[in-house]
Amino acid sequence: MMALVYRGPAKREWVAMPRPAIQDPGDAVVRITTTTICGTDLHIMKGDVPSVMPGRILGHEGIGVIEAVGSAVSTFKVGDRVLIACVSACGVCDLCRRGMYSHCRKGGWILGNTIDGTQAEYVRTPHAETSLHHLPDDADEEAFVMLSDILPTGFECGVLNGKVQPGDRVAIIGAGPVGLAALLAAQFYSPAEIIMIDLDANRLRVAGTLGATTQISSADGTAIEQVMKLTNDAGVDVAIEAVGVSATFDICQAILAPGGRLANIGVHGKPVQLHLEKLWDRNIAITTRLVDTAAIPMLLKLVQSGKLQPAQLVTHRFALDDIMTAYDTFADASKEKALKVILTNPGQ
Amino acid sequence: MMALVYRGPAKREWVAMPRPAIQDPGDAVVRITTTTICGTDLHIMKGDVPSVMPGRILGHEGIGVIEAVGSAVSTFKVGDRVLIACVSACGVCDLCRRGMYSHCRKGGWILGNTIDGTQAEYVRTPHAETSLHHLPDDADEEAFVMLSDILPTGFECGVLNGKVQPGDRVAIIGAGPVGLAALLAAQFYSPAEIIMIDLDANRLRVAGTLGATTQISSADGTAIEQVMKLTNDAGVDVAIEAVGVSATFDICQAILAPGGRLANIGVHGKPVQLHLEKLWDRNIAITTRLVDTAAIPMLLKLVQSGKLQPAQLVTHRFALDDIMTAYDTFADASKEKALKVILTNPGQ
Amino acid sequence: MMALVYRGPAKREWVAMPRPAIQDPGDAVVRITTTTICGTDLHIMKGDVPSVMPGRILGHEGIGVIEAVGSAVSTFKVGDRVLIACVSACGVCDLCRRGMYSHCRKGGWILGNTIDGTQAEYVRTPHAETSLHHLPDDADEEAFVMLSDILPTGFECGVLNGKVQPGDRVAIIGAGPVGLAALLAAQFYSPAEIIMIDLDANRLRVAGTLGATTQISSADGTAIEQVMKLTNDAGVDVAIEAVGVSATFDICQAILAPGGRLANIGVHGKPVQLHLEKLWDRNIAITTRLVDTAAIPMLLKLVQSGKLQPAQLVTHRFALDDIMTAYDTFADASKEKALKVILTNPGQ
Amino acid sequence: MMALVYRGPAKREWVAMPRPAIQDPGDAVVRITTTTICGTDLHIMKGDVPSVMPGRILGHEGIGVIEAVGSAVSTFKVGDRVLIACVSACGVCDLCRRGMYSHCRKGGWILGNTIDGTQAEYVRTPHAETSLHHLPDDADEEAFVMLSDILPTGFECGVLNGKVQPGDRVAIIGAGPVGLAALLAAQFYSPAEIIMIDLDANRLRVAGTLGATTQISSADGTAIEQVMKLTNDAGVDVAIEAVGVSATFDICQAILAPGGRLANIGVHGKPVQLHLEKLWDRNIAITTRLVDTAAIPMLLKLVQSGKLQPAQLVTHRFALDDIMTAYDTFADASKEKALKVILTNPGQ
Repeated sequence: MMALVYRGPAKREWVAMPRPAIQDPGDAVVRITTTTICGTDLHIMKGDVPSVMPGRILGHEGIGVIEAVGSAVSTFKVGDRVLIACVSACGVCDLCRRGMYSHCRKGGWILGNTIDGTQAEYVRTPHAETSLHHLPDDADEEAFVMLSDILPTGFECGVLNGKVQPGDRVAIIGAGPVGLAALLAAQFYSPAEIIMIDLDANRLRVAGTLGATTQISSADGTAIEQVMKLTNDAGVDVAIEAVGVSATFDICQAILAPGGRLANIGVHGKPVQLHLEKLWDRNIAITTRLVDTAAIPMLLKLVQSGKLQPAQLVTHRFALDDIMTAYDTFADASKEKALKVILTNPGQ
Repeated sequence: MMALVYRGPAKREWVAMPRPAIQDPGDAVVRITTTTICGTDLHIMKGDVPSVMPGRILGHEGIGVIEAVGSAVSTFKVGDRVLIACVSACGVCDLCRRGMYSHCRKGGWILGNTIDGTQAEYVRTPHAETSLHHLPDDADEEAFVMLSDILPTGFECGVLNGKVQPGDRVAIIGAGPVGLAALLAAQFYSPAEIIMIDLDANRLRVAGTLGATTQISSADGTAIEQVMKLTNDAGVDVAIEAVGVSATFDICQAILAPGGRLANIGVHGKPVQLHLEKLWDRNIAITTRLVDTAAIPMLLKLVQSGKLQPAQLVTHRFALDDIMTAYDTFADASKEKALKVILTNPGQ
Repeated sequence: MMALVYRGPAKREWVAMPRPAIQDPGDAVVRITTTTICGTDLHIMKGDVPSVMPGRILGHEGIGVIEAVGSAVSTFKVGDRVLIACVSACGVCDLCRRGMYSHCRKGGWILGNTIDGTQAEYVRTPHAETSLHHLPDDADEEAFVMLSDILPTGFECGVLNGKVQPGDRVAIIGAGPVGLAALLAAQFYSPAEIIMIDLDANRLRVAGTLGATTQISSADGTAIEQVMKLTNDAGVDVAIEAVGVSATFDICQAILAPGGRLANIGVHGKPVQLHLEKLWDRNIAITTRLVDTAAIPMLLKLVQSGKLQPAQLVTHRFALDDIMTAYDTFADASKEKALKVILTNPGQ
Repeated sequence: MMALVYRGPAKREWVAMPRPAIQDPGDAVVRITTTTICGTDLHIMKGDVPSVMPGRILGHEGIGVIEAVGSAVSTFKVGDRVLIACVSACGVCDLCRRGMYSHCRKGGWILGNTIDGTQAEYVRTPHAETSLHHLPDDADEEAFVMLSDILPTGFECGVLNGKVQPGDRVAIIGAGPVGLAALLAAQFYSPAEIIMIDLDANRLRVAGTLGATTQISSADGTAIEQVMKLTNDAGVDVAIEAVGVSATFDICQAILAPGGRLANIGVHGKPVQLHLEKLWDRNIAITTRLVDTAAIPMLLKLVQSGKLQPAQLVTHRFALDDIMTAYDTFADASKEKALKVILTNPGQ
């Protein structure tokens, strides 16, 4: 089969690889029909994720059709259409039982990381019963593939951790795909205001079409002042950090109202300064989370009912065997006005 | 009347002052029968709390008898014995209605700060109906005066924010009065282990008598290693910071299990480094809070039922007019083995 | 002034009454500009509410302008436009501090019940600071007057108690004004499905325009079967009872999924049979509640932001001095296709 | 092997049966070392549980040693000592993922019900990885076997559902084994008062030794009056029903304070009358639940730490092959003063 293989920093290849097979009784092998590229894949390509070794097939998002199952798999059978969660969960360990699949003692984020991933014609998915989800055969795969990672991430790490409530004032810092997913998910709870903050004018424009009530450019360094003015110096109930650098975390710290929640989604590479000298008495909460994908069943219902339309995040479409171009486009997101790129494998 | 007056950094005086009178319809005047000294009073004496101006009567904890009430006060009458909450709450503003009395738009921590306090023979208490609590006439005042500030602080900022649950592993960093109050309050929820960490051997010994299951000295810089070894590298579910400096916050960050909660109680004067590069994917929560005293009614029930015995924190007793000595003793806490000092005013 | 006075069962009169004056320091007097009639007023007119004595001015909903305030009222001043909560809360007692204003030891539902109400040119409102809410002068009073009672009732008793969550399947039994308010409020949390059940075809039609995803007529006695068929025998996550009789409570009991919540809003006059022999092992919760109006500040934000449009419930408009006709219309709701009737008092 | 076999109402036999073997990849076979008899077993013996067919080996509680495991079981191996949860959970279905193991689509309460149970020398346990729990080899089996059913039942159905909080006033109606388990578990949350109500003087006496603060006999029909008098007519925050008949449910309904929670544990055979005409406006919650055993990991920690000592519930001890006598003793609980009986199988 063909697959997108990481060859070390800045090197990737679309190349023939052995088709995966069942290894453990809980495995499934899935023929990929739709996949996509994540910002994390770009981090890997920069060499920033040391757990990913050269030779690895990338990708942790995808939809496909079951090709084979191990002897312990009874809820999925060959031919079933499935959504692949980006996190593999054994369902048995203490952390899985608490719903913290991301820290599963036997799984977690392993696809396209420590085992081969979904940017390929076939993928082996361990712990299939607790890591795959049934889809109807006529599913809109562009919409549902957003539920592998980006929507659960925006929802769990941003909206749930931020405890967004009806009537709240929410700020989301970072209007990239994850920030926009948080924007869609925040609306499940009817906040009164959603302020979107980013450097990129196009992304702010998109945010406006997806439900943001105010867009603020952070380009001139006055984002904090603008938020405080907009809120009559009250600040926001929830600040969602969706970038992963010190500057955006600082905006979040500065705009929280007493009782506010700062939900970090961003992947940080360095420590940040936490202004406890200002915050120790402010009754705030700061949260972090690696997506658990525990919310996927709920998100599936919302897509099926039409309440959530995640295909709005798709900007570009490619055939799977054109994935090298897709990476180029996605890597140059600002110029290409790219959010999520869809890769389709029409198959046999 | 006599009162303890702040005269600027390192200067205080027990001196005659005018007896307070009702100023607003919601006020009460209380004759103090029992009061105490808080670590915050020592901070004030160092000049670290700029809102406190010279000439201010200090003190925000106390029990006494109602001497006079304003025209709008109907739930308290002259002669009632009352506990004074350290936080004054209007009960009307948006933040009070959310239970966030510490950020009351007309009150908050004002006693012994921006208005005269309780280390005096009489005190005026604004918003009396929502800031005082009835006590039985035969109340053990040594026990109940701990409910003005220190017990609600340990409970609300440490235990509630830390979401201590039955079976949890809890670490409390700092075995001073507030840390020990958190130790007492943590036991309301039956954690399996409570690890107490401090530099002071005497305080650790006391912690052992009050319910800590393990005591760890941080004197040699190996506290983190000791906690991780003790927990088989799992870390703790809850880390309560009860000191307020960078070093102790760092211990908390380092020992949290995935899904853990770091509840900050300490008053910090400087920023700390937050290791988001390690914590961004750990599903943790960090909280801050200024005590709201919303838990006082519950704590009153627990003292009355004998489930909570906060007089265990009392180490020294003085007459109110010996408060200058009491301050000296409390300021030299380590040598004097002082935790809470009680000041009694037998009165008329 | 003129007022609508209850003269005993089935007797009411629009008649001159003395204009109310401040009695207690916490009172306000409000000149009514908009009011409405509640289903509870019809119950009173039937003689079903024994606490209401002949001679009482009815009405517990309204908007107006402050005419006078007592000496203890500082957050409202003459000329302020205010929303009157149907529940008067002292803000001081133990139950008010827990947000259970409906059981306030000095207040609760007293307006138009044990003291004179809002269906008059003027009303005295006790505990004004904790029972009135500021409105902008240009407020759409038709929309905001729905926040006196009906929207908080649908939200607090139905949606909050029912713990409606994104993706849930919700059934609301009863498409009268309160059931429709619950329908609007349920959408704050993005359920996947909302099934509306009623006898009245017109009300079901209205429910369809307000967001119900399915409408089921209970006229033929097959509502339970229809719900179970629609849900593939799974039942619903939340059943909201908005009628108050045994038959509708029985539907709710029968359609709950394991883990489901039955939120009762209806005012019941008789016991019901609870099928514990079927439900004891079903992991369900049944809740009751008298509206606390604690949610009014949040609802105000949602109306101001346009996320909630409660004027959709208004079907008829009258001048206040035509209130006798308005009662007739509202009492014949099915024939008149009446939901909420608005009474306007252009004033001076 | 020998086993206790149900032969139809009132007929049981200790008889040789085939030793169970692995049937499915997820199975384990456990050699029983300790088991006990549940009140539910007595219900079965009366013929009240139609799902139990003659020929069934009874018992759903036990501790033992793994004798064999299926091919999909990797977290347990032959020779491991394990606690058997009374509920078998597949860990995969939608309800298991929500922690509602009791309604598992492939499991639930099946042991000693629809498949052979634990009152035997060996038992086959399906879904072993998510239905067994590791124990240390030196475990006090008398204590730990209480965690198969009775402690999780008292905790989950009574205490968790009743939302027992520090300072609460709790009433438990029924001082049998389950009610006493709820009594032990309620103390995890430090209520101020626990009122125990029963007909049996001996059980009330035991309740006093296990932490009840007041014991009330319901023998003379004045239990409601006694509770209301004891609470100054305030009622209780939590009422836990641990009997399963109409009379005890009625006590619970009558003694709830506004905002109170009624947690039903009892197995009811008939409907009860719910006094909604009194309760519709009382802001109460009524819950039901079949034990999920989701709390077992937490309970294991509390037993290991010594915070919970469930062996206090053991009154009688027998060898497993004397189980016919043990049943007689347990069935005549009042005369024998029996709570839990322990059956030990020293084995090989």
